[in-house]
Amino acid sequence: MKVHGYGAVNPQAPVAPIEFERRDVGPKDVKIDILYCGVCHSDIHMVRSEWGPSVYPIVPGHEIVGTITEVGAEVTKFKVGDLAGVGVFVDSCRECPSCKKGQEQYCDEEMTPTYNGYYRDGVTQTFGGYSSTYVIDEAYTLHIPFTKELERVAPLLCAGITTYSPLRYAGVGKGHKVAVLGLGGLGHMAVKFAASFGAEVTMLSTSPSKEADAKALGAHHFALSTDPATMESLKGSFDFILNTVAASHDLNKFLGLLKVEGKMLLVGIPPEAAEVYAATLISKRRSIVGSMIGGIAETQEMLDYCAEHNILSDVEMINMKDVNEAYERVIKSDVKYRFVIDMKSLRD
Amino acid sequence: MKVHGYGAVNPQAPVAPIEFERRDVGPKDVKIDILYCGVCHSDIHMVRSEWGPSVYPIVPGHEIVGTITEVGAEVTKFKVGDLAGVGVFVDSCRECPSCKKGQEQYCDEEMTPTYNGYYRDGVTQTFGGYSSTYVIDEAYTLHIPFTKELERVAPLLCAGITTYSPLRYAGVGKGHKVAVLGLGGLGHMAVKFAASFGAEVTMLSTSPSKEADAKALGAHHFALSTDPATMESLKGSFDFILNTVAASHDLNKFLGLLKVEGKMLLVGIPPEAAEVYAATLISKRRSIVGSMIGGIAETQEMLDYCAEHNILSDVEMINMKDVNEAYERVIKSDVKYRFVIDMKSLRD
Repeated sequence: MKVHGYGAVNPQAPVAPIEFERRDVGPKDVKIDILYCGVCHSDIHMVRSEWGPSVYPIVPGHEIVGTITEVGAEVTKFKVGDLAGVGVFVDSCRECPSCKKGQEQYCDEEMTPTYNGYYRDGVTQTFGGYSSTYVIDEAYTLHIPFTKELERVAPLLCAGITTYSPLRYAGVGKGHKVAVLGLGGLGHMAVKFAASFGAEVTMLSTSPSKEADAKALGAHHFALSTDPATMESLKGSFDFILNTVAASHDLNKFLGLLKVEGKMLLVGIPPEAAEVYAATLISKRRSIVGSMIGGIAETQEMLDYCAEHNILSDVEMINMKDVNEAYERVIKSDVKYRFVIDMKSLRD
Repeated sequence: MKVHGYGAVNPQAPVAPIEFERRDVGPKDVKIDILYCGVCHSDIHMVRSEWGPSVYPIVPGHEIVGTITEVGAEVTKFKVGDLAGVGVFVDSCRECPSCKKGQEQYCDEEMTPTYNGYYRDGVTQTFGGYSSTYVIDEAYTLHIPFTKELERVAPLLCAGITTYSPLRYAGVGKGHKVAVLGLGGLGHMAVKFAASFGAEVTMLSTSPSKEADAKALGAHHFALSTDPATMESLKGSFDFILNTVAASHDLNKFLGLLKVEGKMLLVGIPPEAAEVYAATLISKRRSIVGSMIGGIAETQEMLDYCAEHNILSDVEMINMKDVNEAYERVIKSDVKYRFVIDMKSLRD
C-alpha cells in the first residue's frame, strides 16, 4: 500500500514529505493508524548514516503508538480499535536461543529493525513511524495498557525499555544506590525506574542547572561530575551506574565510583571506543555490562508496570513539519526529555 | 629479627642479597621457614617501580610455602611443624563489608601486601618471600593440604587463586564453553581449573607452538587468534573468556567471540587502558568483569580443591642467585609456567 510519511533520500537531505510502499496486511499482521511517534537520537544518527550506511529512502521512527484499523485473518491477540505499540524491531528469526527465550533483540540472525532495514525476505524495506500507518506481525506488537496521555507512552517503546531492561537484569531494588549518568530521553526514564524499584538514586551530571529537574523526576541526590571534591567523596559508593551517555566520555572516572562488585550498565553508544583501565575493574571486582532495548515480552512487562505505577515519559509535542528543528535541539540536548510527533499534523 | 633474603635497593638495581628487619613473632603470629617461593610477573613490576613507586629496599615474593617453626601464645590453628602458605596479602582492616565477607582482597582500607607496603601501623615495612623466614598472623595463613611436590603448590597462592576465583564467581561449569587468553603462569592454571570444573576449554593464542602444551594442560581446543578465518568462525561462541594477558591488546576482537550474555573475566593488568566499543557489549548483553586474587577462605577452598583433584602448577625450579636471569625469561614468556625458587639455595 502507498503510505505518506516523512523521510530522507540521502545522508545530507533533510527529513521531508515522502510517499513509500508499505507491505500489505498479511494473515498475522495488524495495521496501525499512528497517533504518536517519539524522536529518538538514533533516528538522527541513522538518517545521516552516522552508524554506517543507511538504506535510503529512510523513514525513521521506532517509538510508535496508534490504533488498530485492520487485522489479518489469523490474528488472535488484537482487534480493530485496540491501541497498539511498535518498538525498535518488528521481527527476528524466531528460532535461535535468544528468540526462544523471548530476547529477540539479541537474535543470532539479527532482529528486523522497525526502519532502516529489510524484512526477513531480505528485499522488502522497512519504514518507520514518521508516517500515517504501520503494518506489523501481531507477535511483535505491544498492547498499550493506557487510555490517556498516549503521547507520553510512545517513548517507553525505546527509551523506556532500554533503561528498564538493564535495571531488571541487574536486579536493582531496595537498598541499592544507583547513579544515573546523562539526563536525556534515556536518563530521565532511568531515574524514574530506578526510584520506582526502590533504589536510592543520584543524578550525575556536568550541569548544575539539571539539579531541580533531576529531583523533580525522582532522583534523591544530585552530584556534579565536574567537581573533583564531589567525585572524590563518591568513590566506591554506588552499586550500579546506569550510563546513558552517547557522547565520548571518560569511563574510568565513573567506574571508580562503584562499590566492590558494582556494575556499570552501559546503554549509550558513543562514536568512539572508551578507554578502560583493567585495574579499575580488577581492584574491586567491578563490571561493565552492556544492554540493548528489551524483548517483546519484557517490553510488554515494562508497559504494564508503567501503567500500574503511573510512569510516563516527559515529552515536548511537535508537528511533523518541525522535525528538522527538533533534531537540532536533540543534538544540543535541548529537550525535556523527548520530542513526540503528533501524527495528526502529518495530514495538515 | 634480622632476616636474610634477596631484594632490590632501587628501581634500577638487580635483586641481590640483602639483610632486613622482619617483625618479631606476636601472640597471634606464626613464623614460617620458607621452602619455596614462586616468581610472579608482578614481582618484576614492583621491583622496578613499574606500577608506581615501590617502597625500597623491596624484597619480593608472594607465593610462599614453608614449615612453621614457632607459634605465638594465642595461635590456635597452626602448630610447629605444620606446612603453611602465604599469598598476596598478610592483613586487612578486618571490619569493612568486604573483610567481614571474607573477601579481604577488596578491603575498603586496602589489604596489607605481603611485600612492598606497610603493616596496619603504617610504619613497619612488609618484606616478601625471597627470604628465609616469614612472620604472619595465623588468620592470614593458609593450610597446605599437600605432602609432596610442595614447589608446585607455591604458585597456587597467587596464580592459582587469581584464576580460580573469577571462574567460581562466574559460576563456570559443565556445559560452558570457556576460552583462555594467554598461556603463562595464570593462563596455565586457568586451563586446568576450567577443565576441572567441567567446561569445554579453548586456548586462544598468537603462537601455534603452544597448541601441544595447551592440550597437555587440559585444553580441549586450540585456536590461533592471529588467524582472521579462525576468529570469524569463533564469533559468538564462548560463554566466558578468562583474559590473563598483561600486555596491551585489542579487547574488542575477543569480546566479539562471546555469546549473548557472555562474560570476559579480566585478571591481567596491561600497562595501558584498553579501548572498548560500547556497541560490542550492548549488542549481545556482554560483560567485562574484573577479578583480583581471592580472600583467605576462598584461597583455602582452592588449595583444598587442588589437593582433592590433584591440580598443581607446572614449574621450573631455580636457585635464589639466578632470579635476575629468571626475570628476563619471564619477560620473554620463556617459562613453563612458573619459576619457583628453592629457598634452600638461599643458604648456599
